[in-house]
Amino acid sequence: MTDIHDTTATPEELAASAVEALDLADRAALGGGASFWRTKDVPGVPSVTMSDGPHGVRYQAAAGDHLGVGASDPATCFPPAVGLAQSWDPELAGRVGAALADEAQAAGLGVLLGPGINIKRDPRCGRNFEYFSEDPLLTGVLATEWVRGLQARGVGASLKHFAANNAEHDRMRASSDVDDRPLREIYLRAFERVVRDAAPWTVMCSYNRVNGVLASQNHWLLTQVLREEWGFEGAVVSDWGAVADRVAAVAAGLDLQMPGDTAADDAQVVAAVEAGELAVAAVDRAARAVARVSHLARTTRRDVVVDVDAHHALAREAAGRSTVLLKNEGGLLPLAPSGTIAVVGAFASEPRYQGGGSSHVSPTRVDVPIDEIRSLAGDADVSFAPGFTTDGTGDADALRAEAVEAASAADVAVVFLGLAASQESEGFDREHIELPDEQVALLEAVASAQPRTVVVLSAGGVLRLAPVDAVAPAILSGSLLGQAGGGAIADVLFGHVNPSGRLAETMPLRIEDAPSFGNFPGEHSRVRYGEGIHVGYRGYDLRARDVLYAFGHGLSYTTFAYDGIALEADAEGVRARVEVRNTGDRAGREIVQLYASLPGSSITRAPRELVGFGSIDLAAGEQGTVEIRVERRDLAYWDDRLDRWIVEGGTYRIAAAASSRDLRLEADVEVGGDDAAVPFDLESTIGELMAHPVAAQVIGAAFAPVMEQFDAGGDALGMDMARMMASVPIGRAMKSFGGADPAALAQVQAMLDGINATPRND
Amino acid sequence: MTDIHDTTATPEELAASAVEALDLADRAALGGGASFWRTKDVPGVPSVTMSDGPHGVRYQAAAGDHLGVGASDPATCFPPAVGLAQSWDPELAGRVGAALADEAQAAGLGVLLGPGINIKRDPRCGRNFEYFSEDPLLTGVLATEWVRGLQARGVGASLKHFAANNAEHDRMRASSDVDDRPLREIYLRAFERVVRDAAPWTVMCSYNRVNGVLASQNHWLLTQVLREEWGFEGAVVSDWGAVADRVAAVAAGLDLQMPGDTAADDAQVVAAVEAGELAVAAVDRAARAVARVSHLARTTRRDVVVDVDAHHALAREAAGRSTVLLKNEGGLLPLAPSGTIAVVGAFASEPRYQGGGSSHVSPTRVDVPIDEIRSLAGDADVSFAPGFTTDGTGDADALRAEAVEAASAADVAVVFLGLAASQESEGFDREHIELPDEQVALLEAVASAQPRTVVVLSAGGVLRLAPVDAVAPAILSGSLLGQAGGGAIADVLFGHVNPSGRLAETMPLRIEDAPSFGNFPGEHSRVRYGEGIHVGYRGYDLRARDVLYAFGHGLSYTTFAYDGIALEADAEGVRARVEVRNTGDRAGREIVQLYASLPGSSITRAPRELVGFGSIDLAAGEQGTVEIRVERRDLAYWDDRLDRWIVEGGTYRIAAAASSRDLRLEADVEVGGDDAAVPFDLESTIGELMAHPVAAQVIGAAFAPVMEQFDAGGDALGMDMARMMASVPIGRAMKSFGGADPAALAQVQAMLDGINATPRND
Repeated sequence: MTDIHDTTATPEELAASAVEALDLADRAALGGGASFWRTKDVPGVPSVTMSDGPHGVRYQAAAGDHLGVGASDPATCFPPAVGLAQSWDPELAGRVGAALADEAQAAGLGVLLGPGINIKRDPRCGRNFEYFSEDPLLTGVLATEWVRGLQARGVGASLKHFAANNAEHDRMRASSDVDDRPLREIYLRAFERVVRDAAPWTVMCSYNRVNGVLASQNHWLLTQVLREEWGFEGAVVSDWGAVADRVAAVAAGLDLQMPGDTAADDAQVVAAVEAGELAVAAVDRAARAVARVSHLARTTRRDVVVDVDAHHALAREAAGRSTVLLKNEGGLLPLAPSGTIAVVGAFASEPRYQGGGSSHVSPTRVDVPIDEIRSLAGDADVSFAPGFTTDGTGDADALRAEAVEAASAADVAVVFLGLAASQESEGFDREHIELPDEQVALLEAVASAQPRTVVVLSAGGVLRLAPVDAVAPAILSGSLLGQAGGGAIADVLFGHVNPSGRLAETMPLRIEDAPSFGNFPGEHSRVRYGEGIHVGYRGYDLRARDVLYAFGHGLSYTTFAYDGIALEADAEGVRARVEVRNTGDRAGREIVQLYASLPGSSITRAPRELVGFGSIDLAAGEQGTVEIRVERRDLAYWDDRLDRWIVEGGTYRIAAAASSRDLRLEADVEVGGDDAAVPFDLESTIGELMAHPVAAQVIGAAFAPVMEQFDAGGDALGMDMARMMASVPIGRAMKSFGGADPAALAQVQAMLDGINATPRND
Repeated sequence: MTDIHDTTATPEELAASAVEALDLADRAALGGGASFWRTKDVPGVPSVTMSDGPHGVRYQAAAGDHLGVGASDPATCFPPAVGLAQSWDPELAGRVGAALADEAQAAGLGVLLGPGINIKRDPRCGRNFEYFSEDPLLTGVLATEWVRGLQARGVGASLKHFAANNAEHDRMRASSDVDDRPLREIYLRAFERVVRDAAPWTVMCSYNRVNGVLASQNHWLLTQVLREEWGFEGAVVSDWGAVADRVAAVAAGLDLQMPGDTAADDAQVVAAVEAGELAVAAVDRAARAVARVSHLARTTRRDVVVDVDAHHALAREAAGRSTVLLKNEGGLLPLAPSGTIAVVGAFASEPRYQGGGSSHVSPTRVDVPIDEIRSLAGDADVSFAPGFTTDGTGDADALRAEAVEAASAADVAVVFLGLAASQESEGFDREHIELPDEQVALLEAVASAQPRTVVVLSAGGVLRLAPVDAVAPAILSGSLLGQAGGGAIADVLFGHVNPSGRLAETMPLRIEDAPSFGNFPGEHSRVRYGEGIHVGYRGYDLRARDVLYAFGHGLSYTTFAYDGIALEADAEGVRARVEVRNTGDRAGREIVQLYASLPGSSITRAPRELVGFGSIDLAAGEQGTVEIRVERRDLAYWDDRLDRWIVEGGTYRIAAAASSRDLRLEADVEVGGDDAAVPFDLESTIGELMAHPVAAQVIGAAFAPVMEQFDAGGDALGMDMARMMASVPIGRAMKSFGGADPAALAQVQAMLDGINATPRND
């Protein structure tokens, strides 16, 4: 047995050695937790403590909380993923990851259970606030840096929830029924990127089924895709309670069942091995994977004292960068620190800054918006009226009247609207995307009394903002911004921070327009992902559907011009250089988005897809160049015949854009294609064969007499026979219309085999 | 062997007896055709001749046309299904079927290859003109009467294309990937109705795959559903060329491979039986099925002399009844037989009245619209200018100028627009639903010169009519009306026929609004039916999407008021009585449609579904009652857990409507539900168990300690724990959070088995 203090051994060697020394019972036992948050402590494999994340450490130091639902120790509540994603800032995500690692280290944790990178398929998914985006590239790039930041400081990530976990309804049973292309191109794509690029210590399998099979028991998902295709070397951890059949799960590729104590299931694993029903190699794989995490955690253990103030400051920086200015008519924002400001809305004094559920953090402190506004208001006189209560109690008319009076007496009103914690949470999906009626009524009353009305929104899920947009000249979306959100909002309101956040999710005009509408959240434990690859902006664009605010949208207090775009293709993809100029009168940050399309593509595609993004800080009047690398893999589609990624060759159109619907410059670039030839056989159609020079010659000659007869008949049938015959498989054409016998068919197959042996690219 | 002339024996007995007398080679041979249109002639089983239909007999008396594509003998071209469906008239469909039977008898045919009853899933499907509707009830009711009419006169129907054949693209390979509910509720529903109610002699399996398996080799489809569930006793015939593997097809339930000669495949069947790879019972079943058709055809053989004039008159009646008045601003129609009428558009002199492909009939004669208009125009002066050519040749500017001049010189213009035969046909799908640019340009020019412009449309597929609607005050949709369409259009234009046709398919504002958009026609030989049950108006209604003309829409030269609705539920369904009054000044026919919805249903439903329809002829000022029977089966949904039809109990709202978007009266009716209880097991959720009085008691007690802990933790997690726990399966909850061992789980399962043994209805 290798000494676990041998610093020259790799974690894999240490793990293998430790497991080798254990008997079957201990090996099996390693595959299940000891308690709610801990793995087992067996000889040579010290226990690892895990804790919920992902935007803060939810660690419960107090003993006895074996269901994991009690109060947790204070920790910095950074912006949840819904907020952080709006920064479009991978470097910032990395710094937040690093800060989280320090807090986890201070708490003695080995693994922080995040990030959550499921795709926001439908605006109503109750847990969307824990996820980044409707787009897999944005999700994948941000999560990669978050994991790198975390793991670089010695704390393991748990990439979750793997996979296709996009609703809370019936979440422990529902099957996400997804075709290959959307599964690969949309739902697995960010997972693949993070696994390949950041090697998370663990991946957490989800509660749901994927195409009928529980994720925890899904061999295709956990072994074939995750390990064999992507090269994952870490441990697959179950979501808490996701294991229905531990033996089946271990066989499929699950390494660690949580929570513990799992003694009964450990015993079943031993019994299954002894009965010859489970390969001992699977048990060993699981034990080694858990031991590897244990060794990684042990060797990277550091004593850290958290600088709570510094982390709060980082949380405020992140929150500021994640705020999206949706609308700013007449330059109403930023506010002047003078005159009178009426702050309205209960969320100004009781901020909503995170979501309910496993990610719910006990913050170290909370910035209250009204206080932060007052502290930055300078000479301004700031009034406050709640306008409504978040729990619907109180005299709504009186509250509204008070707010309207305050607003009409002021120079400007700032109205805080949003969803209460009880209206969205882990555990259930929303049934609509409306703001509460009383809030809309309040806003309408305030705005009609005070035309200079700014709306600040706090909600983890997308809202139908048409009623807000109809009356408010300025709208700031805070989504959920973490414990320093109140300060960040004040920073943005007064212009101390020039907003640069961008939407990571489309804001539709109506929920009925959502691509998943009608297929969400499913019924009878099945959800058909009927919209296919057309998720989020891809779907709105496909149907040319108007939206209120597009994916990638976000304004600044300054303006930017796009002066030029240059593209250069190479073996790694496409290099883009975009010239941007700050045409306004203050410094700002512009996020440049690149969207690709391929006119004339042979496959179904969204009108455009995000393939890269970058940012630049520019002083007033300054010009600069944003260099963005479009990776070749991000141009690929999943070929469901060949079962692999294919870059289709052709002339790609790349748009440099300020949002998915604000394309500023476009340019074309030629990209060489991968070999995507499908072998010919007797089911190949006459049209497919005719399109191939060699096949056309042979088939054409063999089939000419039949075709001549068909052509002659076309007039009598009022149709183009050649066009119809193009879709007939050669084998069936020969048999049904040419009288071919098996020998004749075999001869054609042999000829096609000859053609297949020659490389082609079509 | 029973004497084949024994008139006391049933066709089944005769068939069985005949097959019994044959050796294996002859039995196998019966399962394949002799030639393009004929079955084999074996001892005791005379050959049967089939011919394409369905809206006319395409019989090729001339020998030597072994590919079936040559010229056919003249036959009455009745309105294709796209037209006939617009009559919403089952009785008329029956009379057309009967007339077709007479023509088939005269030609010596045993089977006419129709009706085509596939659902119009997407407006672009190239063969939609051969199908009835986007709605399965309308399709099923009309097709049932058509088949009854045909078979009552001794000619067999061939119900096609079975099943889920809703596109022409890659039609011989593409898999229609459809979930259970849409497959049963939308795509199979009309087939089930016709099979159960009209017992067609044959069903024709389609070219495509259904969920991955070729229809011709699909045991689930051809045996389990068609024979075992629906009780089909006829023969399953392959579409011409649909068989890829005859042995697999026979095993799956195919009876007759067409076209012949199938000698090579017959030999393979024999070899497979001899090798023990194919059950001889399957070969016998196929042989008996073919023999049964032979005996049915023989015993119902009649000598018929067709009254060509009478059939033309019936074709004209059917065409008139199938014409839809989409719009009639200012009562522009009917035209007065006086003044000057400018007829414009090439389709007025070269009518488009049927589609290209296997259904293409050589008509006995063709009514030319311009001639028919002239013959009914009385004192009116009728000019004609083609305006464009259907093949795009000619001087477009000159043609347009001539037409505009004629239109401006007249009192009214009648503009014939549509699609040429080359623009839609069997064999390919359309890529868009636009009218040709030159026709739109012509119309705009004519309408700006002549505000009194009537448009007459001829096309087999739905068109985007926004450009027409924008300029034309009156629009008449002829779709495709058969050889007498020109006369029928004249009848309607001059008011000799008061139009009563209704759309059988939604006319959307844009193709991007179609529910199937983005999932049509698929790629790589797969089509995902991602919109599920939300096909046609169901999908437009679900998304509350505006349409140009709704399903069921159609105007009259008079008006109708709906005065009352009375509903009565019984064991067979719901009886509806709707009081209708003709409030205009001329006699007319009103089609009353019943749409059902079930507020608060436990399953996903379209906002409303057609569940019945009826019609009434009323003189000016007359009132009458339309009695409509809503069959209980038409209220059912397909339960994909129980795998059977279920009528959900509850208060159904029934609307009496003039279209799917013109609901005139609504009333509620209580309908008792079927037993739809799903047995409880360890994967039943806490919420499901808590909703059951007995289970709640037992589970509640057993699980109370765990729930108390969870509840207490809710605040710390900012969430409603009870709501979250409701979705946790009891087995996983006990194991993961309650420490239950296998014995404890078995105890709960035993308790649930006890509950399952007691009938319940939830």
